[in-house]
Amino acid sequence: MLENISSNKVFGGWHKQYRHRSTVLNCDMRFAIYLPPLANSQSVPVLYWLSGLTCTDENFMQKAGALRIAAELGMALVCPDTSPRGDAVADAEDGAYDLGLGAGYYLNATQAPWSSHYRMYDYVVSELPALIEQHFPVNEQRAIAGHSMGGHGALTIALKNPGRYVSASAFSPICHPLACPWGQKAFTAYLGDDREQWKQYDAVELIKSGAAPLPMKVDQGESDPFLAEQLLPETLIAAAKQMQFDLDYQLHAGYDHSYYFIASFIETHLRFHQQHFQ
Amino acid sequence: MLENISSNKVFGGWHKQYRHRSTVLNCDMRFAIYLPPLANSQSVPVLYWLSGLTCTDENFMQKAGALRIAAELGMALVCPDTSPRGDAVADAEDGAYDLGLGAGYYLNATQAPWSSHYRMYDYVVSELPALIEQHFPVNEQRAIAGHSMGGHGALTIALKNPGRYVSASAFSPICHPLACPWGQKAFTAYLGDDREQWKQYDAVELIKSGAAPLPMKVDQGESDPFLAEQLLPETLIAAAKQMQFDLDYQLHAGYDHSYYFIASFIETHLRFHQQHFQ
Repeated sequence: MLENISSNKVFGGWHKQYRHRSTVLNCDMRFAIYLPPLANSQSVPVLYWLSGLTCTDENFMQKAGALRIAAELGMALVCPDTSPRGDAVADAEDGAYDLGLGAGYYLNATQAPWSSHYRMYDYVVSELPALIEQHFPVNEQRAIAGHSMGGHGALTIALKNPGRYVSASAFSPICHPLACPWGQKAFTAYLGDDREQWKQYDAVELIKSGAAPLPMKVDQGESDPFLAEQLLPETLIAAAKQMQFDLDYQLHAGYDHSYYFIASFIETHLRFHQQHFQ
Repeated sequence: MLENISSNKVFGGWHKQYRHRSTVLNCDMRFAIYLPPLANSQSVPVLYWLSGLTCTDENFMQKAGALRIAAELGMALVCPDTSPRGDAVADAEDGAYDLGLGAGYYLNATQAPWSSHYRMYDYVVSELPALIEQHFPVNEQRAIAGHSMGGHGALTIALKNPGRYVSASAFSPICHPLACPWGQKAFTAYLGDDREQWKQYDAVELIKSGAAPLPMKVDQGESDPFLAEQLLPETLIAAAKQMQFDLDYQLHAGYDHSYYFIASFIETHLRFHQQHFQ
């Protein structure tokens, strides 16, 4: 059911990649898991990491420097891919980086040709955790985090599933896809023209409509080239303030949108989630 | 003279890539430098990192997790590319990964067609440090380290230049290229059939012939698939013992040849070099 395709010892634990058939996505998928040394003797909590546009399961595991901290804290990390994959899966006709392969947006598409495979929401919320909890020494304590498109995914998935995640965090998230070009393009394609349907996948709209609060942390680089047009953290801050929703938001002078920014602050995110695990 | 091609704030310092014309290599080259926060106020020592086969200046900077530690210690990191580059530069006719582009072996080639560009020894020992020391806030305290082919480069360059580096270290180095297939293939191509000429680029031969000792640290993964055929650390250990040469060698159960191994132990290497900086 799970085909192991790589295995590397790192910080005393193990980084492993697996291939499996996803019934939800109707294609073969790859994911990566990091199991800390503590997982040799007991079940451990899991932080799910959702990556941004163009990424796979590899970017975060290789570049964020998170494994060192996960090893210390006794926390598993799980990285899914960012979209369904394979020759049978629809892609943007112009090969755009922000639609189709590598750009699943962690939602369930309703429009052809996307709806036959693009169901990353169900995959991340249900199918993947069920696999992880069946096959690996993890317990049912989950947290969720991500970057950019994956930050959007982490915040919306946590907000839509009260009690399922102890905490959520994001680097440079797409906060309000209804109001930015990336979101408008992807949501039009995946969900159609009815903007009411978009709101269920928009962190700002979910908070405004009364989603249950959970511990939430967002870090943003002030020199991020996507800040003003695509990410719109001011809309998230305003929604959180309006709804008295506790949001730990930090703006960092000089930092950009890259994994160099993530690496610089990932330790604070893992420690934030660790506080909320039992 | 130096063209800046990227700039990312990371751990309070800056990662930057530059392009420049190398007179030694007779082509355009790219390198990366990490300047720690301390470099804003004073000149700092430099650790040169030499990467392995197929790498560029990017692998170590993105994957090793070294920048966090360099920031803390106040140490600059410099990563050259692994060979001359460009359309005019000879490459292996069969596109092999272990000869030609990405496989410069940190030596000065004497054989056609390689000799017109493949002079990575002079580039790393002289041209690049001169540029670094002219353009960046670094002092003349240097250390050198590397991985695999780059571990071979770091050890041989340190051994051949007494006083120039305070210390040398390597992960999974090619210890004795005269005795392994990778080394025999590359040295035959670059240096010709006279094996006497090879010895000047062989760490084991350099130690046996009485190179001046310097602090030297080597880490090796016990599950490295190249260990027995290509890397031959036992030859380095034996030469060091024979010549009463102080070598800190550690074998790590379960670890392989990847950057996951490097990331797991890079902190010990940076702290090792830091001990020898004034």
